[in-house]
Amino acid sequence: MSLTQRMLDSAKAKADSKANARENITIAGAGPVGTLLAVILARHGHPVKLYESRPDSRIKSIYQGKSINIALSDRGWLALEAIGLDKVVKQQAIAMQKRVMHAVDGTITEQAYGTESQAIWSVSRAGINEQLLDLAEQEPLVEVKFDQRLVDVDFNNASASFMHEQNIEKVSADLLFGADGAYSKVRRLAQETPRFSYNQSYMPQSYIELHIPANEDGSFKMAKNALHIWPRKKFMLIALPNPDGSFTCTLFLDFQGEVSFASLTERADVEQFFETHFADAMPLLENPIDEFMEKTANPLFLVKVDPWAINEKVALIGDAAHAMVPFYGQGMNCGFEDCRELGQLIAEHHHDWSKIFPAYQAQRKINADAITELAKRNFVEMSELSGQASFLLQKKIEAEFHKRHPELWTPLYSMVTFSPHLPYSQALAIGDIQQEIIQQIMQIPNIESCWQDDFVYQKLLQLVHAVFNDKQKNLSINKQQQGQSHD
Amino acid sequence: MSLTQRMLDSAKAKADSKANARENITIAGAGPVGTLLAVILARHGHPVKLYESRPDSRIKSIYQGKSINIALSDRGWLALEAIGLDKVVKQQAIAMQKRVMHAVDGTITEQAYGTESQAIWSVSRAGINEQLLDLAEQEPLVEVKFDQRLVDVDFNNASASFMHEQNIEKVSADLLFGADGAYSKVRRLAQETPRFSYNQSYMPQSYIELHIPANEDGSFKMAKNALHIWPRKKFMLIALPNPDGSFTCTLFLDFQGEVSFASLTERADVEQFFETHFADAMPLLENPIDEFMEKTANPLFLVKVDPWAINEKVALIGDAAHAMVPFYGQGMNCGFEDCRELGQLIAEHHHDWSKIFPAYQAQRKINADAITELAKRNFVEMSELSGQASFLLQKKIEAEFHKRHPELWTPLYSMVTFSPHLPYSQALAIGDIQQEIIQQIMQIPNIESCWQDDFVYQKLLQLVHAVFNDKQKNLSINKQQQGQSHD
Repeated sequence: MSLTQRMLDSAKAKADSKANARENITIAGAGPVGTLLAVILARHGHPVKLYESRPDSRIKSIYQGKSINIALSDRGWLALEAIGLDKVVKQQAIAMQKRVMHAVDGTITEQAYGTESQAIWSVSRAGINEQLLDLAEQEPLVEVKFDQRLVDVDFNNASASFMHEQNIEKVSADLLFGADGAYSKVRRLAQETPRFSYNQSYMPQSYIELHIPANEDGSFKMAKNALHIWPRKKFMLIALPNPDGSFTCTLFLDFQGEVSFASLTERADVEQFFETHFADAMPLLENPIDEFMEKTANPLFLVKVDPWAINEKVALIGDAAHAMVPFYGQGMNCGFEDCRELGQLIAEHHHDWSKIFPAYQAQRKINADAITELAKRNFVEMSELSGQASFLLQKKIEAEFHKRHPELWTPLYSMVTFSPHLPYSQALAIGDIQQEIIQQIMQIPNIESCWQDDFVYQKLLQLVHAVFNDKQKNLSINKQQQGQSHD
Repeated sequence: MSLTQRMLDSAKAKADSKANARENITIAGAGPVGTLLAVILARHGHPVKLYESRPDSRIKSIYQGKSINIALSDRGWLALEAIGLDKVVKQQAIAMQKRVMHAVDGTITEQAYGTESQAIWSVSRAGINEQLLDLAEQEPLVEVKFDQRLVDVDFNNASASFMHEQNIEKVSADLLFGADGAYSKVRRLAQETPRFSYNQSYMPQSYIELHIPANEDGSFKMAKNALHIWPRKKFMLIALPNPDGSFTCTLFLDFQGEVSFASLTERADVEQFFETHFADAMPLLENPIDEFMEKTANPLFLVKVDPWAINEKVALIGDAAHAMVPFYGQGMNCGFEDCRELGQLIAEHHHDWSKIFPAYQAQRKINADAITELAKRNFVEMSELSGQASFLLQKKIEAEFHKRHPELWTPLYSMVTFSPHLPYSQALAIGDIQQEIIQQIMQIPNIESCWQDDFVYQKLLQLVHAVFNDKQKNLSINKQQQGQSHD
């Protein structure tokens, strides 16, 4: 070791020890993102108070028999690996290697998500949250409290007031994180601070959850290792498997309009609706008509804010910073990525929050914006395109080209889902270029019969080189592609 | 008159008389838009209560010596004509036929806004507001109340609570309009209603007002009939004339960053800033350093919402529905256009508000979105491009081509400002196509010396025909252009 190196190391050690009394941090919201964040911050030496407005689901059931599922993919796994929880979670997770599309006439088609070894994973939101809470409570620096409703935040000093059984406690801290989800109270309070840009936009669709029970012997009524879709263009039904042999289904349908939650109020109309569009699912679903009549449709909305960190004291993370629609299955994955990358920035900037917060916003907002956009676009892919032969063919051609030239082409879905080191923003940019190219390939006469011929892939290769040269992006794109092909 | 026609007329008269008891309407906000709206609604037979949170400026000065100016253009005049107030307002207005650009070295260049007979008009916001209030109070159906702070709105029945001297009055009505400006309370309360999409985004710039007094003899210190700009790329100073010989100036500057309101806190730095960038304005400005040091910079932000009308009971109008930045001088013009078109829709739909509100939103939101976008883009045009010779040349070429082929080309600025029957959204769309075309003309070698040659305009003509044919938009664009060339 050189003298210079030793001097640098010594200076660094001194700086680290000087900042030895780590900032106290309050986290509002002990959902999956807030709890993961608590573990990461504690392991960086920060005392953490993790406050949750709801009761502890491990003691008191708060889900009313509902099982909300989440599609966990490589970005989420990478974050769980970083805290050593991936193996525990995987025990309760079900791999979904493919989409299974159910046409109106009952015809079934399939589409692999990636290569044979790649899958997205169906996990229970409650389950993963409880596994994270168990871990957080083992951290000496983490204190978890439930039934604590956030009442107020002081954005100048990061203190927050929580109400518990009519008593209000003022919690002082050096920093506060709002990890309190799509309906974040921290964010709503932040709207009152100066120069806070805010965007909340509703999708035309709303949703309700439905249920397909297991067979009497506990086996699955449909293919287990798949995400099932009934694509009906303006609306769709999807189903994700649960470990008990059941499926949790979600019906996405316009909130108002000709065929919508608002128009379907008569029982006979609802029966007609299901019989017409979901005949093959009817024998599987448990009381869909009753469920439809009884349930209130949940809205879908996107949230964007700027800044993510206020006064270098209070920051938003996860859905609180970037609520998105569920059509790419990336909401929790993105929130977990927020936490993992924040942890890296803490190390990189030696706990200097005046550097960490700006870097956190600069690094994460562009990517959250990108996945929010991709998720919004993906409704059309799921509800409409996935039911079209030409779209499935396009995906096959992309998969084949990827196999031949993995360094030149990774399908967009794989970049988002299976390339956890490729930023979402780059996946979006590359995906848009790919789309231009593949559209030209789809114009080849009789492509549906000749798609496996070599000349198709030679043309694709030419187009890729031409576009990359033309746009003078050759180098950077190749670098990105290589970066993510090693994932 | 045919029998059928007579029967139709009779049916219409019956329908009209049936709805003879017109809906009672509350308007929150008696600024220029709310007051114009009150007059228009009253003239359509609606009893109107117009409530304003501030005192009556005609009795008690509320502007603290500030004179806020507004650039009134043809859309605004059209609305004022419709209520017969244009002549009164024009007596106090000053025509601005051109931009006058002041370079750093003091060089002055000019750019006409349109043809010789066209101008935008500098009016005092307080003055036009008071003229509108005088008119509104002459309407038998309008009741105006001041010092009434809006406290709450019931979006189900359009009742609103106003506080006056600590007393809260609940005002019942059939309909409520929120005309309460960029910081609208009605809109803030509407955010609590279900499925309300909301977007508020801050610009990097903020602003303060400065002042150039008249000469001792009451004459103007600079050219009177002009909007003066000191374009400095990242920031700029502008000045609008007042009838008393003074100019109201606005300094637009980044809120934070290297050169910004946040960085300029020391008096010496502020002096240096003005001396370096606005040397030629310094002898004209009244205490700019003191003003800069004392004043708090005002933020600039855009607001978009959806829906504009809630439960067919409460609607937003003017800045409350679409706050924009001031760089196109269209904020009040757009608000006035909202009112004028709403009046037309009331007549068209015979006071059937279940039809008026959806039509109002469909017709106005797309245009408010367009002018909001154009206004945002125009900062660059004002602060940077207007100081560039190539940009001024482009404007000259456009003006010349417009003179040769008025049916084919009207410059974007004129479409927005002098073509009040052309929707903003079409101006934006046509403007984008024009921009593509004119960029090609600017590539002609030595265009700065040959720009008056015929071949330039022949090429321009070819390009226009090619693009329009290519995009198969020939017919619709020509129609739009012809429509607005008659304005």
